[in-house]
Amino acid sequence: MSLLIKGGEIVTADSRYKADIYCEGEQITCIGPNLEVPKQTKVINAKGKFVFPGFIDPHVHIYLPFMGTYSKDTYASASKAALVGGTTSLIEMCCPSRDESPLEAYEFWLSKAEGLSACDFTFHMGVARYDENAAAELTQIVKAGISSFKIFLAYKGAFGISDYELYHTLALAKKLGVIVTAHCENADLVAELQKKLLSEKKVAPKWHYWSRPPMVEAEGVHHLATFAAMHDTHVYCVHTSCEESLRAAIRARERGVKIWVETLIQYLTLDMTYAEKPNFEGSKFVMSPPLRHKKNQDVFWNALAQGLVSTVATDHAPFDFKTQKRMGISDFTKIPNGIPSLEDRVTMLWTHGVDQGRLSLNQFVDVGSTQAAKLFGLFPRKGTIAVGSDADLVVWDPSYRGKVTAKKQYMAVDYNPFEGWEVTGRPSVVTVRGEVAAKNGKFVGTLGRGQLIKREPTHF
Amino acid sequence: MSLLIKGGEIVTADSRYKADIYCEGEQITCIGPNLEVPKQTKVINAKGKFVFPGFIDPHVHIYLPFMGTYSKDTYASASKAALVGGTTSLIEMCCPSRDESPLEAYEFWLSKAEGLSACDFTFHMGVARYDENAAAELTQIVKAGISSFKIFLAYKGAFGISDYELYHTLALAKKLGVIVTAHCENADLVAELQKKLLSEKKVAPKWHYWSRPPMVEAEGVHHLATFAAMHDTHVYCVHTSCEESLRAAIRARERGVKIWVETLIQYLTLDMTYAEKPNFEGSKFVMSPPLRHKKNQDVFWNALAQGLVSTVATDHAPFDFKTQKRMGISDFTKIPNGIPSLEDRVTMLWTHGVDQGRLSLNQFVDVGSTQAAKLFGLFPRKGTIAVGSDADLVVWDPSYRGKVTAKKQYMAVDYNPFEGWEVTGRPSVVTVRGEVAAKNGKFVGTLGRGQLIKREPTHF
Amino acid sequence: MSLLIKGGEIVTADSRYKADIYCEGEQITCIGPNLEVPKQTKVINAKGKFVFPGFIDPHVHIYLPFMGTYSKDTYASASKAALVGGTTSLIEMCCPSRDESPLEAYEFWLSKAEGLSACDFTFHMGVARYDENAAAELTQIVKAGISSFKIFLAYKGAFGISDYELYHTLALAKKLGVIVTAHCENADLVAELQKKLLSEKKVAPKWHYWSRPPMVEAEGVHHLATFAAMHDTHVYCVHTSCEESLRAAIRARERGVKIWVETLIQYLTLDMTYAEKPNFEGSKFVMSPPLRHKKNQDVFWNALAQGLVSTVATDHAPFDFKTQKRMGISDFTKIPNGIPSLEDRVTMLWTHGVDQGRLSLNQFVDVGSTQAAKLFGLFPRKGTIAVGSDADLVVWDPSYRGKVTAKKQYMAVDYNPFEGWEVTGRPSVVTVRGEVAAKNGKFVGTLGRGQLIKREPTHF
Amino acid sequence: MSLLIKGGEIVTADSRYKADIYCEGEQITCIGPNLEVPKQTKVINAKGKFVFPGFIDPHVHIYLPFMGTYSKDTYASASKAALVGGTTSLIEMCCPSRDESPLEAYEFWLSKAEGLSACDFTFHMGVARYDENAAAELTQIVKAGISSFKIFLAYKGAFGISDYELYHTLALAKKLGVIVTAHCENADLVAELQKKLLSEKKVAPKWHYWSRPPMVEAEGVHHLATFAAMHDTHVYCVHTSCEESLRAAIRARERGVKIWVETLIQYLTLDMTYAEKPNFEGSKFVMSPPLRHKKNQDVFWNALAQGLVSTVATDHAPFDFKTQKRMGISDFTKIPNGIPSLEDRVTMLWTHGVDQGRLSLNQFVDVGSTQAAKLFGLFPRKGTIAVGSDADLVVWDPSYRGKVTAKKQYMAVDYNPFEGWEVTGRPSVVTVRGEVAAKNGKFVGTLGRGQLIKREPTHF
Repeated sequence: MSLLIKGGEIVTADSRYKADIYCEGEQITCIGPNLEVPKQTKVINAKGKFVFPGFIDPHVHIYLPFMGTYSKDTYASASKAALVGGTTSLIEMCCPSRDESPLEAYEFWLSKAEGLSACDFTFHMGVARYDENAAAELTQIVKAGISSFKIFLAYKGAFGISDYELYHTLALAKKLGVIVTAHCENADLVAELQKKLLSEKKVAPKWHYWSRPPMVEAEGVHHLATFAAMHDTHVYCVHTSCEESLRAAIRARERGVKIWVETLIQYLTLDMTYAEKPNFEGSKFVMSPPLRHKKNQDVFWNALAQGLVSTVATDHAPFDFKTQKRMGISDFTKIPNGIPSLEDRVTMLWTHGVDQGRLSLNQFVDVGSTQAAKLFGLFPRKGTIAVGSDADLVVWDPSYRGKVTAKKQYMAVDYNPFEGWEVTGRPSVVTVRGEVAAKNGKFVGTLGRGQLIKREPTHF
Repeated sequence: MSLLIKGGEIVTADSRYKADIYCEGEQITCIGPNLEVPKQTKVINAKGKFVFPGFIDPHVHIYLPFMGTYSKDTYASASKAALVGGTTSLIEMCCPSRDESPLEAYEFWLSKAEGLSACDFTFHMGVARYDENAAAELTQIVKAGISSFKIFLAYKGAFGISDYELYHTLALAKKLGVIVTAHCENADLVAELQKKLLSEKKVAPKWHYWSRPPMVEAEGVHHLATFAAMHDTHVYCVHTSCEESLRAAIRARERGVKIWVETLIQYLTLDMTYAEKPNFEGSKFVMSPPLRHKKNQDVFWNALAQGLVSTVATDHAPFDFKTQKRMGISDFTKIPNGIPSLEDRVTMLWTHGVDQGRLSLNQFVDVGSTQAAKLFGLFPRKGTIAVGSDADLVVWDPSYRGKVTAKKQYMAVDYNPFEGWEVTGRPSVVTVRGEVAAKNGKFVGTLGRGQLIKREPTHF
Repeated sequence: MSLLIKGGEIVTADSRYKADIYCEGEQITCIGPNLEVPKQTKVINAKGKFVFPGFIDPHVHIYLPFMGTYSKDTYASASKAALVGGTTSLIEMCCPSRDESPLEAYEFWLSKAEGLSACDFTFHMGVARYDENAAAELTQIVKAGISSFKIFLAYKGAFGISDYELYHTLALAKKLGVIVTAHCENADLVAELQKKLLSEKKVAPKWHYWSRPPMVEAEGVHHLATFAAMHDTHVYCVHTSCEESLRAAIRARERGVKIWVETLIQYLTLDMTYAEKPNFEGSKFVMSPPLRHKKNQDVFWNALAQGLVSTVATDHAPFDFKTQKRMGISDFTKIPNGIPSLEDRVTMLWTHGVDQGRLSLNQFVDVGSTQAAKLFGLFPRKGTIAVGSDADLVVWDPSYRGKVTAKKQYMAVDYNPFEGWEVTGRPSVVTVRGEVAAKNGKFVGTLGRGQLIKREPTHF
Repeated sequence: MSLLIKGGEIVTADSRYKADIYCEGEQITCIGPNLEVPKQTKVINAKGKFVFPGFIDPHVHIYLPFMGTYSKDTYASASKAALVGGTTSLIEMCCPSRDESPLEAYEFWLSKAEGLSACDFTFHMGVARYDENAAAELTQIVKAGISSFKIFLAYKGAFGISDYELYHTLALAKKLGVIVTAHCENADLVAELQKKLLSEKKVAPKWHYWSRPPMVEAEGVHHLATFAAMHDTHVYCVHTSCEESLRAAIRARERGVKIWVETLIQYLTLDMTYAEKPNFEGSKFVMSPPLRHKKNQDVFWNALAQGLVSTVATDHAPFDFKTQKRMGISDFTKIPNGIPSLEDRVTMLWTHGVDQGRLSLNQFVDVGSTQAAKLFGLFPRKGTIAVGSDADLVVWDPSYRGKVTAKKQYMAVDYNPFEGWEVTGRPSVVTVRGEVAAKNGKFVGTLGRGQLIKREPTHF
């Protein structure tokens, strides 16, 4: 099987040029102008289109139990959604609870993906407990190719870890050479503010914001940075939503802390007024940290362009509006958290980023794919277009115009947060390791072909 | 009994002028040039001298049990030391342990002072536990005239409180209108760093610093500020030692947090190299937070002059070098913490502050007396020279030259951290509520005459 | 002539207590409860009222030529307006142009005030040129009792000075021990942005803002701070309008620069949307720096409460809407700059500050009077209530309710920027050096009784 | 002519892998393991060595008249020095004086390089005057392939431009899509401080520092950032030497300014104590901005690793110690400015950066080559190892150990600032567009083969 992407304009994080791309098997084997290729080669005409490396979503939930229910996607629906949207690799959060064996959890999470996913995938391994046993199993998991951890400073009692555990998890990560991704919110403050709001009968979705104000998040980032500095461990703040947190991270970098920042497509395009929508519509827009004041959007678009924020992810976690979100109808703390956007991340980043002049083409690729690949040990196998790299390619049609609608989506959830929004470009062809997996919004790939991407530790 | 301070130059936090001060009974009753007074009036000639309001040390330990031993001072020795040094009021930390009744502790602490102290005093009431019983007793204590709390973010398991307790203690303080003073260091980090250093055989006094580096303190300040903002409670960072912490506090003030900063005379004059002295001499200079890099001194002198730091205290806690400090001879974590300086605070502040041109005369009074009086509800009874104020006065001789030596000190401890240092001024007369209590370095007052200063809540 | 203010609650920058105030001649001679006074003493019943020290407006224009016209007030109208509003002393900007003799200018400005003013006054001496002659005359002016300078970084070619002149003016100020007040905006940027906007036909009042965006002001503050640091000169940023500038000043203080910040009552209460009013109404709200985004108001109210901003002034400069403001009907750069508020500063500060819980009573006095007195060498003659201080007193009625209207104002201008706004307190009696000058909104004083307040240099 | 680099470990800014590199003519035509190549191919054995893209020095002076003398290098000596040190491309500052025609100056500068240089080169076009004529000529120069400007905020009267000119130069740059590199120091402050120091007989080399303290530089950076923001022009701070300046630049990036930072190898390795050497030795270490306090070195090493500083250059400007530097023997302002290091930049960056664990291999390439290529429009022709890129390659021997000595250097100057310093690696082979130009410290290339690298505007 061989494939030729012909006549497109190749854009990577740091280059832009016209050339053909030839893929033999699963990798890119040749790049150049007017390549001559074997006759049977499948040819994709990319004339007038851009060719990007497959995009990477570094923060996704698929298997996610919550209060007796589950987020709606399986790897089947999720990987289809990812692919039609241009995302060819995703990193799922493997989130065992405090009392589970990390290794068993990892194997369980893996079993949900293998044989079902149409796109490639890997995991951030959740650390919800630190003790000698956990450390031993985590070491084994890293050896198995999972070279990043995930911790929660929030969610005390569930996933959240104590300062003692935080200290030792970061020490272990340093020893193993892996990066630690972290949910940064002060757990006690969230718990107390929730109690206070509920006691004042403030139960509607919009009050969710006030249980997790910016300083609660910034406090978490500051805390993480202080602890990371003790071991010189590399850390990564997931879903950074507000200027206060970003500033805490930048100040930490200035004093030598190895800290990177992820934001989400939701924070770049939606704001807190969405969660204030009447008729419980606001619940569709409940996630943690919450959507923030609109003024933060400019801050983050600029920070992406300046390299101060590394990645744009989704924290994808789909819960049905009609049934699941309703669990919180009289208590916002019971609304399952999550705003689905795995399918729309890249098109929204294009429409509101590139098309609005906020990001260059190179920056678009960098924050949507390359940086994640570099930070998490996927590069240069993923995240770029180069000879030897996996043939994960997105042929992008900048002339496409359309609208987002839940009706046509692959995500297994009954709404779309961007319902009715305009889109000014989309993938016309998406390949995974040399096979075409999506065309013009339709999934045409193979369920189960997706592979676990084994990764080496990156920091020694 | 009446008293006339004649011909001096009066200096308060915001004025400087020549006038006589007449005191009838315990208060100042008249201020003016060339006052005519009754014949029997005791006259103190202050010509060529300054007259300052009595200085206030807002952070002192007298009764302080530690690992089976006790800090050396009683109220007898401590109040004498305070008075010869110009300090006419002190605020002791009442520090019950977690399992004690706050009320019983308060009464016990009070019993150590009443009938013994020669100077006036009050307490910051330590909160080592928060629950309904504690809250009820604390409320009673505030009603009894103790309008400030003290909490520890450090010393987990002993005095340290959890985030849950921190949240509720700050809520209670807001409700009662009292300010919360706080020891800001991250408890877990200190514990882990201590363990790590000891495991590496780093046991000498100098390693104490490395168990509590600047970021561990700044983390505490940031944490306190975040929690204080939730209730708009007034908070006060005791013994702030480094630029990192100060900056965290100033940033918090900029975003609306009501946070004040205390530094210590030790941080303004000594630095970390003192704790590196050989032959265990370094142990004399072990306190927490530790003495810092010398560069911080300029930062704090400037911050005092700029009003960014409010007060200069001592955290006085005297432990004998020959016996008590030796408990940590092979383990720095066992060195009793404290650098005695109750007696020398004001003269050192004069010598290194005013005399070096770093503080104006007004600023000297402000940071050494007035600010503490205002912050803790003593003003205008204490902290200024005005009709109606207590006749706590310090007649200051700027022509005095001498040297510090433990041999002549009133503090009940076998060394002085400033041994041999030059002094360029000192109190020639010190009065407490109209009675002369010290003259030229000698205590001439009355043990037991000191009173508990009852204070009203200040913040509503 | 003697006066008794009876039964009021006295509030100064740092105290609050009930007492009578007795004034013999022009000074306060006695303060105490239930004073017994001579029979002929005029008695003012202050029961249920506050008694504040007379307020001070440290930034006023009275004689101000502009493009062939003049601001409308004389010292007669201005001092009446000041007094009914509670302002008993004002500091006028004496603003010679570049080619004038400083000394002649000073004498001219003084001649406009002496014999006409009903309230006390002094000047900040404008330095529009630096050379040997200017330096000699400025030195003479300082000796005559004018101990502060005013410079413009903006208004190049008119008042604005070059970097060379800035350097030497600050050196002279240091030598003479005087503080330098400064208008901080980058002159060239303003000029270029004005040209650009006009060339794009952006001529309406609202475009004024865009010719002086926040960074243009912050640049000026940063520039001033850098130069001030070279000589350790004390400087004072007049009319600071935005967070960017304030932050630049605070950062400078942190590194040791002696820099103070003034804001204006207009910036605390009005915002940029006022200048966007239709039918040229916006011109009433044109001043420089311009009114800013509303979000800055919280920043400044907090900064006042925190002591990070020292004073609230007016930059009073009244130009009639119907005639003078119209000069800029087709070119915003020709709108005479100024928003009159000398009369309403104190009531607005009360209504929006104290009454809204943003300032305590002490802070109200501090930022409205005491700080200005201290910074500019008027203290303790002005700015406090103390024996020996001038009997400039404001008996304040917190029960008064009324509305602002230009119809009843003393300011000689045809509009009031706060037209129709509610007021929740006002002076019921205002005295100047022992004479009642205003009662319940009516001027009852004596034109010409106001004196030049001679001031000593404050910084050596 | 064809060339094979065999068996090396290729390192670019974002990858590291073992492969052969085949170059046919001047470009890289193939990269892969065990390449089979034509027989006549010249083979370089890179086993056990790294292969880096040719390094780029983005800030060099070669033709530099100063007070009647000239910096010592010609393109012959300079390009040899560059090449033996691993620098295959350099960007010279073309610095006309205020009254010269830009176009004539450019042609003159170009004439000094063409036909003489052994390495490739381009220019930053100095703008010392802005008017219509200058603008027209600058536009022509950009069209000729010079897509970056250089301005001086310092050196008033010589190269320095006014704020008016700064505004319009930045506008022109935006229009043309070119980046503006800037020397950021406040000109007036430098002039005044120099005068002051000389008047105090402070004439030795060490006083140079005090004529240009950190705030003078930070002021310049702040100023540049403010002006750049007005047009959204991309700017680049050359030779950033201290934390104060860096912080100003980072704060500007946070608010959206497109500003990049260059530091110099001198600031990373030398400090202000070098300029204090006795016997006028200090003059060897006089450049502007001056060498700073050692504490800045950690700040900059971290900032490089964090991506907060983009490039490491030299500001190479060689003046003989025995003759030229002596011009300032009794007046430090007459010491020709410059510390030669074109030859040693890369080896020092390796020795003190990579070898000390401060930079990873990728970061070493990034800050030494790739970032400069990207910022200045040379990428991907220069700055990376990729098919189609120029075959500018450095085969690096990490096992080399040696010492720096002026005796063996190619730079035409009589001293080396790193005399006697150890070196822990060096280029064993250096190629320029496929031709070997240096081997183990010896120049073996061809004078005159170096080309002007024409560059397109990069920012639209």
